[in-house]
Amino acid sequence: MRVTPIAIGDPPLLNAAGLHAPYALRTIVELVSDDRITGIGEIPGGSVTLGMLRDARDVVIGHDPFQLNGIKQALVDRFGDGGVSALKDVRPWETARINHVWSAIEVACFDMMGKAIGRPVVDLLGGVVRERVPYSAYLFFKYEGAGGALGFDTDPAATGWAAARQAAALDPEGIVAQARAMCSEYGFESIKLKNGILDPDLEVDSMLALRKAFGPNVPLRIDPNGAWTHATALRCGRRLEGTLEYYEDPVRGQDGMAALKREMPGMPFATNMCTTSYGDIPGSIAKHSEDIILTDHHFWGGLRATLELNRVAATFGRGLSMHSNSHVGISMAAMTHLAAATPMLTYACDTHYPWQSDELLVGGKLPIEGGCARVTREPGLGITLDPVALARLHQQYEDCGLTDRDDAIEMQKREPGWQFKPVRY
Amino acid sequence: MRVTPIAIGDPPLLNAAGLHAPYALRTIVELVSDDRITGIGEIPGGSVTLGMLRDARDVVIGHDPFQLNGIKQALVDRFGDGGVSALKDVRPWETARINHVWSAIEVACFDMMGKAIGRPVVDLLGGVVRERVPYSAYLFFKYEGAGGALGFDTDPAATGWAAARQAAALDPEGIVAQARAMCSEYGFESIKLKNGILDPDLEVDSMLALRKAFGPNVPLRIDPNGAWTHATALRCGRRLEGTLEYYEDPVRGQDGMAALKREMPGMPFATNMCTTSYGDIPGSIAKHSEDIILTDHHFWGGLRATLELNRVAATFGRGLSMHSNSHVGISMAAMTHLAAATPMLTYACDTHYPWQSDELLVGGKLPIEGGCARVTREPGLGITLDPVALARLHQQYEDCGLTDRDDAIEMQKREPGWQFKPVRY
Repeated sequence: MRVTPIAIGDPPLLNAAGLHAPYALRTIVELVSDDRITGIGEIPGGSVTLGMLRDARDVVIGHDPFQLNGIKQALVDRFGDGGVSALKDVRPWETARINHVWSAIEVACFDMMGKAIGRPVVDLLGGVVRERVPYSAYLFFKYEGAGGALGFDTDPAATGWAAARQAAALDPEGIVAQARAMCSEYGFESIKLKNGILDPDLEVDSMLALRKAFGPNVPLRIDPNGAWTHATALRCGRRLEGTLEYYEDPVRGQDGMAALKREMPGMPFATNMCTTSYGDIPGSIAKHSEDIILTDHHFWGGLRATLELNRVAATFGRGLSMHSNSHVGISMAAMTHLAAATPMLTYACDTHYPWQSDELLVGGKLPIEGGCARVTREPGLGITLDPVALARLHQQYEDCGLTDRDDAIEMQKREPGWQFKPVRY
Repeated sequence: MRVTPIAIGDPPLLNAAGLHAPYALRTIVELVSDDRITGIGEIPGGSVTLGMLRDARDVVIGHDPFQLNGIKQALVDRFGDGGVSALKDVRPWETARINHVWSAIEVACFDMMGKAIGRPVVDLLGGVVRERVPYSAYLFFKYEGAGGALGFDTDPAATGWAAARQAAALDPEGIVAQARAMCSEYGFESIKLKNGILDPDLEVDSMLALRKAFGPNVPLRIDPNGAWTHATALRCGRRLEGTLEYYEDPVRGQDGMAALKREMPGMPFATNMCTTSYGDIPGSIAKHSEDIILTDHHFWGGLRATLELNRVAATFGRGLSMHSNSHVGISMAAMTHLAAATPMLTYACDTHYPWQSDELLVGGKLPIEGGCARVTREPGLGITLDPVALARLHQQYEDCGLTDRDDAIEMQKREPGWQFKPVRY
């Protein structure tokens, strides 16, 4: 079991928590069996999960990858479950830590299992519901800059989406241009805009500009990350009625979401903030805080646990979409296998993948064509780690000096004195 | 794909619906792949599911057994889903029919998958949580009789449990004798008594006699199958407070269960009647109609769907046990693989297996030792169908003249004029 932190170039994307650093951090797990079958997993980086994963080596090594229940239990015995099974009232990131650790290991185990039996991971998750998994264009307000070594600088030789990716987008025109370039490159047929940063009316204007530019057949989503007050969210939501496919986390908390929903009965609400673990599900059901839950195998506890949201959705009448963070191809492949096997996941998935130019797979980045990633028929995840690329991205991690994500600090470098406010407008 | 109805000898066991016929009906599904790998499944018999399974051949043949989602969808396309996915208000047996059909096919697919990859089914369900799966002694009030060809007659040469199995048990002494013989043979460490037939106080007396005979360390359960009024269930429950591990379906319906629970806050309630499908889960959660749900892969829609009850239990704070009908070794093996992979299934499972002397496996009946069945490490279900035994049990089906279970008709043969009453006492 090898655990390798990496840093991947990331442009200066704005969100309610601040600004993306020039590098996004991920941690890569490689498992190698006695018979030399390998399995790989990827999770969000950070010093705590990195330390846990390194400590997890003693727990994981020696297990059979098919014994997922046994490995998970051994990890819980080692680290505690962060309230995952005991349903204690823990802070979300404590729940997420054991889920991050387990997710990376479980995905690597599935990759090994699939390779061992000559089957793609999707076949170990119940089989293919959809061969082509739709993803959405994920738009950001952003400063000019390519990220990575270039930071706020740009590469003058860039063309097409690579040029658009480094352009500033701070108004409706910038967002529409970003959308056109991204959709032209990848063929996305749904569009999501990260909001909660600039003046809410400017953000709503940007959504309405997208509607005008792309017409009524392209589903649009807005995600203010809970940065709006009830009054702002209600006012902005009214401006967007009939325009949005769903309204993601306009306000914070299940009670806040439920209260807003009662005033906007015709608007579909989605969340990746107020309902992010199974501990949140009883409240979600009791309060009906959202209509659509964004899955994420990194946060919900691996592929199997996330797949079980399909049952929650079918049983309680919820829809499913998928959340993403900045990531490379291992996560992209795992997300695609999972989405391909999840019947209720009928909304196009989020992905930051177009924003990252770094990759660690043999053959480079996985293709997105017609807005979709095709689930492989190759064994396991169907991808191969490039050791040279991994070493390069690990060196990038060592060199960049970042060990934990902190979008507020990055924002302060750009705007001195900036402070994170959970509810800004 | 071969579909074979069988009849297995069954003693005259009493329950709230009437009397077990001399034969219990099961339907056996055999799948054979192009490369001659076989898979087998077993479900409750009956003319409707038999006809559906025969019609399902056109749908199933040609599929890859790993494509469970695809096969299930093809079956739903063919038969409708009985409200399973649409959450329509359907009658439970309509839901159960597609679930029966799918369960038999899915178990056979898992058996094939396991054999194809050289892994036991439990490894395809997340791996082993417990190698030894505890079952409970399942006691019945009964008339004298061995069932099968002997009907109400007995085999005078029988000894041990085989003798006790054919003895009458219509009072506390008879039940205690039945329990002693069954526990002596199989080592069960939990005891369940099917009730709702005789005078409730006699039934409660029988439970109290079991407590006296077996002491406080043997968990006891009572299951009146909803045949009691609220008042009777409250009175009987009070007599049993401190004695029962759980109180299974004393009254009918989620509202009835919830109302009784409110008056007996210290008593754990279990169900296999008011919450028997995912369509019932929202009501169960809203009303808290029970503390423990009895799983059953034949009714909940196969191994994967039933395993997902683990998540429901963990998320909403419920316990899990397992329901059974009269069955042979294919169901026994499938139940054991499922229970071995279900972390929250901490209550000993029900099984009628000791009551049936017929078997269709090579090597005869699967062992239960120390009250437990050991999950195999052999590929697939780890069992082999004996074609001679299958042919014999199919001939028994042809000869016995039964095509559907009707415990009321059987009871009327013994007690003319007997009528089923949902609530009798």
